[in-house]
Amino acid sequence: MFLLISYDIADDKRLPKVAKLMERYGKRVQYSVFECLLSTSQLEELQGKLRRLIEVTRDSVRFYRLCEDCCQDITIIGDGEVTHDEEFFIA
Amino acid sequence: MFLLISYDIADDKRLPKVAKLMERYGKRVQYSVFECLLSTSQLEELQGKLRRLIEVTRDSVRFYRLCEDCCQDITIIGDGEVTHDEEFFIA
Repeated sequence: MFLLISYDIADDKRLPKVAKLMERYGKRVQYSVFECLLSTSQLEELQGKLRRLIEVTRDSVRFYRLCEDCCQDITIIGDGEVTHDEEFFIA
Repeated sequence: MFLLISYDIADDKRLPKVAKLMERYGKRVQYSVFECLLSTSQLEELQGKLRRLIEVTRDSVRFYRLCEDCCQDITIIGDGEVTHDEEFFIA
């Protein structure tokens, strides 16, 4: 499934750790926004790692699953492009 | 339609202007991520204003439309909640 994952991390020490983890599961399309193509088990694995990494009362990670139709409708103003399947590196 | 709009703005002078504009079209759910409920004309209006505001070679604004099904599937780890219809203020 295609997922858009965005995060706000309150602590500068945690932030690079989250980014590094995310880079193993998808493509960074903006500073704290990733596009990922994950199976259910990969998503659960990632979520488990994130729960151990972040401070749940101060940080937030949002997961938006996009179906085929919604994926066709992604638009961009300015710099950037939509991620295509073959560009994904999965851990 | 429900939209997730995220942005990366390269210049600290443009950034607050984009945030202020976005706050008139939806709800800020993370530092540079907004959830919006917009008609097609409202979306076109917002995109027109953004095109005049940002530097297209250095900034980026991404628009992800989510259908009803995808909207039911939004999940969050940590701080935050999913936006509900009545919470939207439209310009």
